[in-house]
Amino acid sequence: MAEKLTPREKGFSEWYVDLVQKAKLADYSDVKGCMVIRPNGYALWENIQRTMDKMFKDTGVKNAYFPLLIPESFLKKEAEHVEGFNPQLAVVTHAGGQKLEEPYVIRPTSETIINRSFSKWIQSYRDLPLLVNQWANVMRWEMRTRLFLRTTEFLWQEGHTCHETEADAEERTLQMLEVYRTFAEDYMAMPVLPGRKSESEKFAGALRTYSIEAMMQDKKALQAGTSHNLGQNFAKAFDTTFQGRDGKVHYVWQTSWGSSTRLIGGLILTHSDDAGLVVPPKIAATHVVIIPIAGKATDAEKTQVMEKSHALAADLRKAGLGVVVDDDETKGPGFKYNEHELIGTCLRIELGPKDLAKGSCVMVRRDLRQKEFVSLDEAAAKAQTMLDQMQKDLFQKAKAFRDSHTFEVNSYEELKARAEDGFLLAHWDGDPKTEARIKEETGLTTRCRPFSLKQEPGKCVMTGNPSQGRIVFSKAY
Amino acid sequence: MAEKLTPREKGFSEWYVDLVQKAKLADYSDVKGCMVIRPNGYALWENIQRTMDKMFKDTGVKNAYFPLLIPESFLKKEAEHVEGFNPQLAVVTHAGGQKLEEPYVIRPTSETIINRSFSKWIQSYRDLPLLVNQWANVMRWEMRTRLFLRTTEFLWQEGHTCHETEADAEERTLQMLEVYRTFAEDYMAMPVLPGRKSESEKFAGALRTYSIEAMMQDKKALQAGTSHNLGQNFAKAFDTTFQGRDGKVHYVWQTSWGSSTRLIGGLILTHSDDAGLVVPPKIAATHVVIIPIAGKATDAEKTQVMEKSHALAADLRKAGLGVVVDDDETKGPGFKYNEHELIGTCLRIELGPKDLAKGSCVMVRRDLRQKEFVSLDEAAAKAQTMLDQMQKDLFQKAKAFRDSHTFEVNSYEELKARAEDGFLLAHWDGDPKTEARIKEETGLTTRCRPFSLKQEPGKCVMTGNPSQGRIVFSKAY
Repeated sequence: MAEKLTPREKGFSEWYVDLVQKAKLADYSDVKGCMVIRPNGYALWENIQRTMDKMFKDTGVKNAYFPLLIPESFLKKEAEHVEGFNPQLAVVTHAGGQKLEEPYVIRPTSETIINRSFSKWIQSYRDLPLLVNQWANVMRWEMRTRLFLRTTEFLWQEGHTCHETEADAEERTLQMLEVYRTFAEDYMAMPVLPGRKSESEKFAGALRTYSIEAMMQDKKALQAGTSHNLGQNFAKAFDTTFQGRDGKVHYVWQTSWGSSTRLIGGLILTHSDDAGLVVPPKIAATHVVIIPIAGKATDAEKTQVMEKSHALAADLRKAGLGVVVDDDETKGPGFKYNEHELIGTCLRIELGPKDLAKGSCVMVRRDLRQKEFVSLDEAAAKAQTMLDQMQKDLFQKAKAFRDSHTFEVNSYEELKARAEDGFLLAHWDGDPKTEARIKEETGLTTRCRPFSLKQEPGKCVMTGNPSQGRIVFSKAY
Repeated sequence: MAEKLTPREKGFSEWYVDLVQKAKLADYSDVKGCMVIRPNGYALWENIQRTMDKMFKDTGVKNAYFPLLIPESFLKKEAEHVEGFNPQLAVVTHAGGQKLEEPYVIRPTSETIINRSFSKWIQSYRDLPLLVNQWANVMRWEMRTRLFLRTTEFLWQEGHTCHETEADAEERTLQMLEVYRTFAEDYMAMPVLPGRKSESEKFAGALRTYSIEAMMQDKKALQAGTSHNLGQNFAKAFDTTFQGRDGKVHYVWQTSWGSSTRLIGGLILTHSDDAGLVVPPKIAATHVVIIPIAGKATDAEKTQVMEKSHALAADLRKAGLGVVVDDDETKGPGFKYNEHELIGTCLRIELGPKDLAKGSCVMVRRDLRQKEFVSLDEAAAKAQTMLDQMQKDLFQKAKAFRDSHTFEVNSYEELKARAEDGFLLAHWDGDPKTEARIKEETGLTTRCRPFSLKQEPGKCVMTGNPSQGRIVFSKAY
């Protein structure tokens, strides 16, 4: 029997950790806060990477690679940036058997070292826009870590672009946010609110930060991607300039945008259930498992079942699906059902001698866990239809969940009372002090001011001061 | 005009550095010995990665990811291993604003930290073979560095496998070496000698190391991939055991194998010329550049040339080729020819009004740099044929070069005299002291004992002691 998970009702956090470990997605390591991403988990990351990478390239972005280590002095060149990241740095002080003259930090993000290169590469407006992305590991020393969601080392992509004008930079910032939204919703089946972060929640060194915010099954928010308009802050710190069309020297306008292995945490927390992982077909590595049921069959029947199973697998693979035939005779069908529900195979096909005699098979969608009898002639086409429908249903289910846990809140009492209930749309006076007090008293943080939320004036739920419009408050990962 | 490179005759090293920088493949950074891989260089790495990754997966290997940092104590568990890597380590002593109780080293390779996981994951022979690969950055503090060929940080893949028996491990070691050979020869068009390394050249902690050795244009050897039979050395150090079919507990037998961004250096040094980069089509990101020549043409002619250029590009893209149409009117054709020769676009197509009137175009293979007139109707098919032929020719040319610079050498005088001439096949008594003395006196190192070289007894060129067979001596990168 596959090991049972703690049910979500009994302990949501325990369920999550159980699932990640028992489905062999990731494991703790002996390095503080660092995880090992196991093959089942890494396969999800590979599919995320492949899809996103193509989306980036379709907008003209090219990949590059910059050093892991950053001279400590680089980080100090942008005042807000160093203040934001300083407490989280891992520092290399010795190398090659000697003490270093200047320590290096392991990149927590690469704006500084990348600007050093940009300042050499860019001369003229003809070199702009410069659109670069890096897939890399980064390190932020965290006190409290959780597999995938917050780890000291994580894998991510960081895009960095340079532009002639502020408008061009803003356009690119929003374009990449839209790429993240599309990816989250169309591939991960994870509905998100794109919007602008508050001043205190923005990236250290940015002019403006935008994010996509998703709601997990425990009604907490997960920031699933961020896009920053950096203005000229880093350009000024690193003298990244260009000769403009007017013949004069200008600082470039920049953006950066990132998403990480945290997305895998979001995927799990959005769709999975007490039986294990549920993966949207567009992100899954294995779409179909075929389980031949031949325990009590005659040898002739067994041969027939095996042959048909492999023939069906071949048909499904031709359609571009990832398929395994689980013909391990040392394990019974029940064990296999549980195992594939645990690791999140999207669709299960059961095929025994009786099915074969009737020319049919049994199909079970991972999310519904209901048997459906399907004619063998139509099996390949039906599998594809069921997977398409599963992709849509997962999104709709998650969206319905989010929408039914999103509330307008009009008083501080109500905000406190509903603190655990989901996304709370409330007026706030825009003052970081008010925001900090609300966070301290309720545990709620501002997530973003969603583009979809019409901004109308009102009064701050805490201070009664004028508010420009509602913002989303929520507990968050 | 594209900037001219130092000709190879005048200074091979200068030519290499010129090429890497002017073709925008890589750049120096402010971090000692670390490089920035620019988009042109990274695109080559992406193609290498994509191809190799598929080859690995076809043998049953799955990708995973392990921590960047390794507790210092882990490295010390395998005596030879720590001795080999200790001088090259970068050490993290502080993190999160505090001094660490135990320092971490940045991985120089991951056998130790991976074994820590393996020892938890493996219980029974049913868990074997375990076949894992990691694409990652690693760091080895080097004194003398050279872009791509030897850098403090580099990108690589490291495969790690566990097996039930010594024979299984040896089989896997050789299987992966054969994957490297196939990749080097069939994709990189770089002929290699697969063979076994000497004791002193083997991986620190391995039982046996095998490598593929290529010859560069300056007749020096480049080790382009290594595959190690680790025996039970790391298994014993980390207690990586399994319950065998006999019910008893055994240590696993392991392999590891790696190749890196060094391959890009090998690619350049094998095929490129004084005009710039030459890339085998199977590794190239851009196969064809179409250059419309319409400087002195009428508007009507210009429109026709542009339309035909883009139509031809569409045809070529349909055939799966990477195509750019260089229609930048601020630059002349001569500039574009030089530029695309510098960055290594495989095939150039020139198309002007006169060509169009004749229903033809001009095609120039990057390696041959000779014009060929081709009917426009046949252009798409011809481009494919020319690229296929180029792939074959590059391999044959490199192989002919290597073969004509490989010599049997029968005395120490001869070995010294021919030290710069290429691969020298000489008898050696197998004593590491003899090997060290030869290295000191001649600068020659043993590269490998190639499988293709029949081992027949003889006398060591230096000591006159008995030799089991010839080994390849060469200067090396």
